[in-house]
Amino acid sequence: MPMIRECIVTTLNEEGRVHIAPLGLIAEPLVADGEGWIIAPFRPSATLDNLRATPFAVANFIDDVLIFAGCLTGNKDWPVWASTHVPGAVLEAALSHAELAVDHVEEDELRPRFHCRVVHEAMHAPFKGFNRAQAAVIEAAILATRLHMLPREKIERELAYLQIAVEKTAGAREHAAWRLLVEKIEDHYKHAPPA
Amino acid sequence: MPMIRECIVTTLNEEGRVHIAPLGLIAEPLVADGEGWIIAPFRPSATLDNLRATPFAVANFIDDVLIFAGCLTGNKDWPVWASTHVPGAVLEAALSHAELAVDHVEEDELRPRFHCRVVHEAMHAPFKGFNRAQAAVIEAAILATRLHMLPREKIERELAYLQIAVEKTAGAREHAAWRLLVEKIEDHYKHAPPA
Repeated sequence: MPMIRECIVTTLNEEGRVHIAPLGLIAEPLVADGEGWIIAPFRPSATLDNLRATPFAVANFIDDVLIFAGCLTGNKDWPVWASTHVPGAVLEAALSHAELAVDHVEEDELRPRFHCRVVHEAMHAPFKGFNRAQAAVIEAAILATRLHMLPREKIERELAYLQIAVEKTAGAREHAAWRLLVEKIEDHYKHAPPA
Repeated sequence: MPMIRECIVTTLNEEGRVHIAPLGLIAEPLVADGEGWIIAPFRPSATLDNLRATPFAVANFIDDVLIFAGCLTGNKDWPVWASTHVPGAVLEAALSHAELAVDHVEEDELRPRFHCRVVHEAMHAPFKGFNRAQAAVIEAAILATRLHMLPREKIERELAYLQIAVEKTAGAREHAAWRLLVEKIEDHYKHAPPA
């Protein structure tokens, strides 16, 4: 059973422009020499195109959920610095990051799987424990990307449940991230045809 | 709005024996010189007695949810090493830890608040991103401590929802932690009088 880690993946297009995308990476503990990650971007996506053009990526492990919510609501402008061992970019907000090189690709009609090996890893800031509001924002972010696939009633019920943890445990950034996502979801239903 | 971080707090009793307890710490960003944490243990509890006897604690920031589930199901035997700046113990599993000294106590009938300052902090291993199963285990752990306060129907409905993330994203330790908590909850209802 592979473990999935939600992070921000940065890739480069063929002109070297950085693309930032929230993605669930699949841990692959048994890759040849140590740990690996599988990136499985949906078709079509910029991450997919970029991995074909430039077979490298950076996995940014962050606890700033405002970046997740921002990326899903049109704000992809987050400060980065150049990665050191592969062509790419590291988020300034990363608590840690892994620089990845694509080892081989498993083709798939829906989600090709890019098996990557870790070329370099670095730690930048300490993890400060689980925060229930951050986890709720991650769940809301996933809901926000599936509005066309899930019944409205289910989405609203889950948001109501998740909101409790936000109210009880969020800091300012979690509240801001939550609001961005809730607004995106409300906007969607405002413009959706009545059920 | 204070942010709450779920971590493992270690304290010492008056004979110097280590007590390990999962707790939500309240971040207190505005303490005199930098960051602080408030520990608010329920009455009665070993953590509360220990903080009166030895006014120090270690906040262990871990991503190993099996330790949370273990502590709630009778297994408090996790490897530690001696903290360096206050009397206490650091979990070997800690990705990072903070050594705390009690600054002052706000008395309360239910949950006295121990305002602590950070005496020392250290980073040991990188954060590897959000894992939805870990967050689901944390939620289940909180439910498992509130069986006497919440309706069974609510607990079972929330567990069913949380289980989806476990099935989709857990690694081996998250599955093991989930099973421990579900068994504890099932055991409770086996021995509970019928509703």
